[in-house]
Amino acid sequence: MSESSPATGSIAVDAMGGDHGPAQVVAALQLAFDAFPDLRPVILVGDEAQLRPLLAEAGLAGHPKLTIQHASEVVQMEDDVMTAIRRKKDASMLRAMDLVKDGVASAVVSTGNTKILVAAGTLKLRTLEGVERPALAPVIPCDRGHLILIDGGANPDATARHLVHNAILGTHYCRVELGIDRPRVGLLTIGTEEGKGNALTNETHEALKALGGLVNYAGPIEGFQIFLHEVDVVVCDGFTGNICLKSWESLVKFFGRELKTLFRANPVRMLAAVLGKGALRGLKHRIQPERYGGAPLLGLRGCVIKAHGSANRHALMNAIHDASEFVRTDLVHHIEADIAAANVVLDQPAA
Amino acid sequence: MSESSPATGSIAVDAMGGDHGPAQVVAALQLAFDAFPDLRPVILVGDEAQLRPLLAEAGLAGHPKLTIQHASEVVQMEDDVMTAIRRKKDASMLRAMDLVKDGVASAVVSTGNTKILVAAGTLKLRTLEGVERPALAPVIPCDRGHLILIDGGANPDATARHLVHNAILGTHYCRVELGIDRPRVGLLTIGTEEGKGNALTNETHEALKALGGLVNYAGPIEGFQIFLHEVDVVVCDGFTGNICLKSWESLVKFFGRELKTLFRANPVRMLAAVLGKGALRGLKHRIQPERYGGAPLLGLRGCVIKAHGSANRHALMNAIHDASEFVRTDLVHHIEADIAAANVVLDQPAA
Repeated sequence: MSESSPATGSIAVDAMGGDHGPAQVVAALQLAFDAFPDLRPVILVGDEAQLRPLLAEAGLAGHPKLTIQHASEVVQMEDDVMTAIRRKKDASMLRAMDLVKDGVASAVVSTGNTKILVAAGTLKLRTLEGVERPALAPVIPCDRGHLILIDGGANPDATARHLVHNAILGTHYCRVELGIDRPRVGLLTIGTEEGKGNALTNETHEALKALGGLVNYAGPIEGFQIFLHEVDVVVCDGFTGNICLKSWESLVKFFGRELKTLFRANPVRMLAAVLGKGALRGLKHRIQPERYGGAPLLGLRGCVIKAHGSANRHALMNAIHDASEFVRTDLVHHIEADIAAANVVLDQPAA
Repeated sequence: MSESSPATGSIAVDAMGGDHGPAQVVAALQLAFDAFPDLRPVILVGDEAQLRPLLAEAGLAGHPKLTIQHASEVVQMEDDVMTAIRRKKDASMLRAMDLVKDGVASAVVSTGNTKILVAAGTLKLRTLEGVERPALAPVIPCDRGHLILIDGGANPDATARHLVHNAILGTHYCRVELGIDRPRVGLLTIGTEEGKGNALTNETHEALKALGGLVNYAGPIEGFQIFLHEVDVVVCDGFTGNICLKSWESLVKFFGRELKTLFRANPVRMLAAVLGKGALRGLKHRIQPERYGGAPLLGLRGCVIKAHGSANRHALMNAIHDASEFVRTDLVHHIEADIAAANVVLDQPAA
């Protein structure tokens, strides 16, 4: 991960996943090379016969920072995890992961099946010392800025130990990604009084309190506090986090559809929509920002960025840039020390 | 619950809970008596010394359909469940519940602490034959209408059996509340392929499939499918459901704040806001409808409507009216037969 290791530094981009296919990935790459002159070298992983003409068309053939790694197979959304990993050894997502495992690349960007990405990352890269499960950490817009949600869906059957680790992973990522030195960490639950959550959050709450200064724990938070930005890192299990993320996205789209219908109801409102176009467009940009095109899978020995399956070229460009930035920071090193300290506390027999 | 039992039919309204105090409840009552001439008789439960002047001011003193049941204490939001139930025997919420338990009233409406309402309902009214835990069933706006979410927060540590019961409770309630004869039921999970949820949803999915025609099971659904209205009843545990509800509400408010800021950015947009006022107001009405002022706590031997702590008079009016309508339908009777049939399937040894 750090800049000092000579073999590392490239970003392996899985060209074959995603709803829009390799053309979209190539378009994103073109945008990324244009927008970020200091972008790390990219290894595009996928079907060479499909990629070569697309790259030529985009003017990227022979680009000094670009190489192709051929992969003959593609992980599909409906693939079973273990079958994909055992049988599709030459799938672009798995080949990209192999490049990091073998030290050829330092980061993977993929739009593919989350569950298979999590399993492949865990098996091929392995988790950091002391971490049992990786966690997805998307950036969420909220009042006066953004916050980190962790876990967005990597580990649906989390234990209290996993959630404590999420608090540490999220703290470190928040520091790097949002520049908040001592991020406030909240545990997502129902009812914020002691003992009002479920068994998992009650146990986690006690463990987080016991951590001392390792995490700036602000206590439990309820669903309605998320967008008020009362904390900078929201900790939850991957089941809850994934349902939240996807339902929020869906609610925003529903909101947009309703707004569109209402603004088309009569000529006065249509005029209002024309005059207010900038505001409506600004809202879309604010609520569904392509600025954060992907979410890192934290807790692994390497950087894995999961981009949305339906990510457009701008979102993908940002995911590739995020991976590039991620590689610059020595995130992993600092995380392991804190995880070790937390595990000492977690492993103490209950008083 | 049915109209045939002579002692029943009144609605016990807890006047003391809620963020806005008894004045708001009295105002809601005034609206309800005006709007719904066939409203069931109401027993207002709370501090008589506070209520009498408020009722006089509202012109409701001596109203033929209104009686007062004095209660000297109030359940507070921060009260511990067992302490409240054991020590605050004369609290308005608990007195209201006693009225249903003793057959004096048929329904309770309260804005108070959800956890205490659930515990008091379970202890005083008891659950229906074969049901272990009650579930909150709010109505949610979505594309082309509304759907029922169950459970919205009554049972945060649910088992697969509880979720199957939620599917049945939600089906019956959806039939009555939304008039859908054979509502499509979806199980809220992550990843809709077999085996992609968590341990709880995977077990529940198998149990729901085994139910046959008892529930119109449409399969697992992901968070992004909720507002697309692909199902009419969304089944989940109370932890997930409560976080969803509260975060959605918060997201809508965040959305509104952003929209307001954007429409004030310059004079052209301000004009657009004036011209589009109807559309913006329509959106607010559509997304946060006061039409559904409360959510029933289903699965009990009696009707309990939990109204939002911050409910305004219109929302409370609708909650009182909902209770009145609820009393008219013999919901409970039909539920018990289906629960019994489901339990036969659930209790079969695994093949």
